[in-house]
Amino acid sequence: MTTTSSLTTVLLDVDTGIDDALALFTAALSNEIDLVGCTIVWGNVDVEQGARNTSEVLQLAGHGDVPIALGAAGPRDGSRAVFSPEVHGADGLGGCADRAHAPVLSRDGAADETAVEMMLRLSHAHAGSLEIVAVGPLTNLAAALDADPTLPERIRQVTIMGGAALAPGNVSETAEANIWHDPEAAQVVFDAPWELTMVGLDVTMTSLITDEHRARLAAGGAIGRFSSAILDYYLAYYESFSGERASGNHDALALAVATGLVKTTFSPIVDVTVDCSDGPARGRTVTTLEGEWGQWPERDGARHRVVMEVEPGFEERMIELLATA
Amino acid sequence: MTTTSSLTTVLLDVDTGIDDALALFTAALSNEIDLVGCTIVWGNVDVEQGARNTSEVLQLAGHGDVPIALGAAGPRDGSRAVFSPEVHGADGLGGCADRAHAPVLSRDGAADETAVEMMLRLSHAHAGSLEIVAVGPLTNLAAALDADPTLPERIRQVTIMGGAALAPGNVSETAEANIWHDPEAAQVVFDAPWELTMVGLDVTMTSLITDEHRARLAAGGAIGRFSSAILDYYLAYYESFSGERASGNHDALALAVATGLVKTTFSPIVDVTVDCSDGPARGRTVTTLEGEWGQWPERDGARHRVVMEVEPGFEERMIELLATA
Repeated sequence: MTTTSSLTTVLLDVDTGIDDALALFTAALSNEIDLVGCTIVWGNVDVEQGARNTSEVLQLAGHGDVPIALGAAGPRDGSRAVFSPEVHGADGLGGCADRAHAPVLSRDGAADETAVEMMLRLSHAHAGSLEIVAVGPLTNLAAALDADPTLPERIRQVTIMGGAALAPGNVSETAEANIWHDPEAAQVVFDAPWELTMVGLDVTMTSLITDEHRARLAAGGAIGRFSSAILDYYLAYYESFSGERASGNHDALALAVATGLVKTTFSPIVDVTVDCSDGPARGRTVTTLEGEWGQWPERDGARHRVVMEVEPGFEERMIELLATA
Repeated sequence: MTTTSSLTTVLLDVDTGIDDALALFTAALSNEIDLVGCTIVWGNVDVEQGARNTSEVLQLAGHGDVPIALGAAGPRDGSRAVFSPEVHGADGLGGCADRAHAPVLSRDGAADETAVEMMLRLSHAHAGSLEIVAVGPLTNLAAALDADPTLPERIRQVTIMGGAALAPGNVSETAEANIWHDPEAAQVVFDAPWELTMVGLDVTMTSLITDEHRARLAAGGAIGRFSSAILDYYLAYYESFSGERASGNHDALALAVATGLVKTTFSPIVDVTVDCSDGPARGRTVTTLEGEWGQWPERDGARHRVVMEVEPGFEERMIELLATA
């Protein structure tokens, strides 16, 4: 990938599922992103399947050289991991996990280092410039903070796909799936002293990938056809409850916000509190943005950027990038 | 009050504050309501002040004969009572608690029976026709259910002012004040086998009392002038965070829904779960109405009517009623 002045050095923390795959393709194909590593977390699928999917997608994109490191297999608190086969298919790629016929690497393509070790290594190798984009449960990031509390000093920014500030949830009435999967880890990540941007359902569910987009991908090259095939499963899931073949563009949008591929037009700085209770709002990202009808002071030192609106057009550019690759 | 075929027999459970006073005036003055008793609960003010305010308001309305019974002084779980002087004034009536110069009754105008005793007595006296309208924390209702679990069999309907289904909270980011004051009691009341209608912030905050309304009350009779005086305080509170001299019409709207003074135009039947955790959403009324972006089954046996929209016009009629009294 050609180095330019606008190149952003990115570590992607993924639980590769369908929308993670689109983010990986985008990161691999964009001239503005230097993807230096992928850490794998449980979430959409188990962590080993997530690693296999990540390896396959990267190889299909001609970036099989990007190192992959296995991370957490389940939530921070030791509770049972719950996956999302209904959304992404049992294999995480809508039944297409073997379709790319990528060469099988040893250890599922994973490096000898763990996800935490890779995060810390890359944070030193790219101190001050590394952008972490985390699009699964935040278990790996919380573990990296446990291992080295100085990590935030070396990170340019953390951008997560997760949460919902004013929007409803997608895995419960109030909670978004990535945060709901591991609220305790999410709270650790929000509490850490780094610049954190939350790209949640408020904006990912208004940045849609449509069946028309999928058709354009299907008419494209190998990456486009693969993307179309996995999106076919994803759009069917969305259609099952919304009646529309249109999905949120979750993970790729977080990557795009982090790397400047899309500009934000409304992203207030607030304080996010994760509901870590066992109540019915477990996993909700509670912010004072919900306080429209109340009167209480903003919390001192609010510092989480919550993206509520982006410039339209990123999905068009992303589809073009993937279709022509 | 003249008995007509459309007369509704009402027990009001109040924590008389400013908007409770407007509901009491409406109940006392309407030809369509037979107000057979008031039970007093802690909430906006302490329970004794609530009883004094209720007595004063009823006497001003010429209904000093309506029996009043003291109820709970604090939350069901024994925790400390928190009042709302910033909203209603230290006396609950914006500094006007002695303005009506009503004759002072013995025991603050309260009857010898407790709130629970009155609820049970009236449930027998008006078995099958009694409408309970509860516009404070639900501590009294939960205690009445403890005392006699057969109570619901004799109640026509319970209508509460409380909660928020899609709307934000008014006492925290997510919680409405009445539910937040005593979530454990609220859950008991939602769980009981009676017909329950929730009139929450979704609809009370879009049913506004304006400064123009207040001015019309000020030009009216004794009840109008008193209502204007207490609203002056209430509107100033709302102005302090919204910039507008306009308040939600909380308690009177619940009364109006319960008694048919206003028609509902959208009131789906869902299941309400109260957040009784210690998390940041404590006191939230979680419903599947929030599930716009998720896919999970509606709970079996949903049976709580949540009012989301009413016909406009009730506030105009209420102001007219109070101004001309």
